[in-house]
Amino acid sequence: MIIDRLIEKIKETENPTVVGLDPRLSYIPAYITDKYFEKYGNTPKAAAKSMLKFNKKIIDSIYDIVPAVKPQIAMYERYGIDGLKAYAKTIEYAKQKGLVVIGDIKRSDIASTAEAYSDGHIGVVDINGQKYKGFDCDFITLNPYLGSDSITPFLKDCKAYDRGLFVLAKTSNPNSGELQDLVCGGRPIYEYVGALIEKWGEEYIGKYGYSSVGAVVGATHREQAARLRSIMPHTFFLVPGYGAQGGKAEDLAVCFKDGIGAVVNSSRGIIAAHMKDEYKTCYNDERFFAAAARQACIDMKNDLRRCI
Amino acid sequence: MIIDRLIEKIKETENPTVVGLDPRLSYIPAYITDKYFEKYGNTPKAAAKSMLKFNKKIIDSIYDIVPAVKPQIAMYERYGIDGLKAYAKTIEYAKQKGLVVIGDIKRSDIASTAEAYSDGHIGVVDINGQKYKGFDCDFITLNPYLGSDSITPFLKDCKAYDRGLFVLAKTSNPNSGELQDLVCGGRPIYEYVGALIEKWGEEYIGKYGYSSVGAVVGATHREQAARLRSIMPHTFFLVPGYGAQGGKAEDLAVCFKDGIGAVVNSSRGIIAAHMKDEYKTCYNDERFFAAAARQACIDMKNDLRRCI
Repeated sequence: MIIDRLIEKIKETENPTVVGLDPRLSYIPAYITDKYFEKYGNTPKAAAKSMLKFNKKIIDSIYDIVPAVKPQIAMYERYGIDGLKAYAKTIEYAKQKGLVVIGDIKRSDIASTAEAYSDGHIGVVDINGQKYKGFDCDFITLNPYLGSDSITPFLKDCKAYDRGLFVLAKTSNPNSGELQDLVCGGRPIYEYVGALIEKWGEEYIGKYGYSSVGAVVGATHREQAARLRSIMPHTFFLVPGYGAQGGKAEDLAVCFKDGIGAVVNSSRGIIAAHMKDEYKTCYNDERFFAAAARQACIDMKNDLRRCI
Repeated sequence: MIIDRLIEKIKETENPTVVGLDPRLSYIPAYITDKYFEKYGNTPKAAAKSMLKFNKKIIDSIYDIVPAVKPQIAMYERYGIDGLKAYAKTIEYAKQKGLVVIGDIKRSDIASTAEAYSDGHIGVVDINGQKYKGFDCDFITLNPYLGSDSITPFLKDCKAYDRGLFVLAKTSNPNSGELQDLVCGGRPIYEYVGALIEKWGEEYIGKYGYSSVGAVVGATHREQAARLRSIMPHTFFLVPGYGAQGGKAEDLAVCFKDGIGAVVNSSRGIIAAHMKDEYKTCYNDERFFAAAARQACIDMKNDLRRCI
């Protein structure tokens, strides 16, 4: 089961870090972008080719020390079709390198539409009997606002193609509480969602006691995360918000149980490490950006292991 | 303002109908698909080309009698990059024909990511000073689960590029109540969301008293819709769920005020009219699918106008 594979890779690397592949042009060294801008002009195609090259170099540098990557599709959708090609190729490359890939797509719609998303991102399309995989992620993220029938179509593909989900429970952004913390009958909304996710995942529990249907639980809310950990014993957590968004290892330790139970995402903190003062000194040439990213993964691993 | 343009087109056509361009291969006549399957094999490319051709013929047949179309991006994402090319070209073609285009994308993410989505769907990307439009919709749909800071980046682009939003308040699917109807402090969640949408739209109110920041309110929930209409006096409604999903004109009449205030979507009911018994008799050749769609738009207009 895909959740077992993720857990085994975390054990092998001793690192519950997910690298968020959310490139921005401003992160990408000029020696990469210049070549493409020269060849294709100041175009979305050149931007997308630069992003893909940047991602590949990051992946080459970190694939043996982290279990997974999480490309954020918005960063690619920003550049339209060209950007989405870079998204697809990034996923393909990361999988070739043995990484688990979490497509951060946060999709959500009514059942007949959810089926189409599921076909495209974790399932297959059948065209006159010939089957094609689309973006072909191991896991994707989903938004729960529409309720169970918006999730069910994805569950079917989880079963058929051994895929997994991370459904938003409590997000890491400053205004996440506006709806998610509203209290209904003594329970906040994110707990209702947590209970639903635990239920959606019942039939997808692997050999380590965790389900392939996981939850997104922000690192910026320690008490809520602790509460969710206790009411969702079989749910693996994808934890965003570490580093750039202010989440600390001490706070997110509550997401773990016996050293497993969660993966922690960092995007900017790793892929843009070469722009941070603490790495600039050692990696004093932009050509070392991938080495800086590797060092940032190791530092993050040590920071997390100190607490969990 | 874009909401004024939508309202004026509704007045001109006397038709508050939005045609949902959500094609499935099973809707598309063989005389269209055969050509592409022959040329490109049973591939996503052939599927996508068929969808685009089908959409163009539907658009040609209805552009003078409806104000807007709403392509559902999932139906295109299902076919990967090829499908998304058909999505982009469908939008372009519909705009050329003077239709208002609502991109049904239901995106949602934290602020820095929401910016990227906004750039790609209603804004522009700046590449070394050169600006490019992405999918270039007039309106897009959004999911509110993450709260205000997930919406703000889109509002900036609404102002800069005269675009609009429809944010999910109460959806049309059977399980929509699971979270949306939970009652907190005497008010259901969808009303909290409704109040937020009304607030988000404050600075975008046009000459007819409605904001370019609208709400999605399902046709399948009459009382909830009535309540939302009363607490959201400046919010225009996008109403899904009419027809195939069971929503009736009588029920959704409450979304209107003095004959305006909402647009009602129908997808299957129009674009697959040629497959329904009531149209099969008159349009007894699949080549008449676009004419059947036109008749379905007229019938829907009459049905709606009977009640509003």
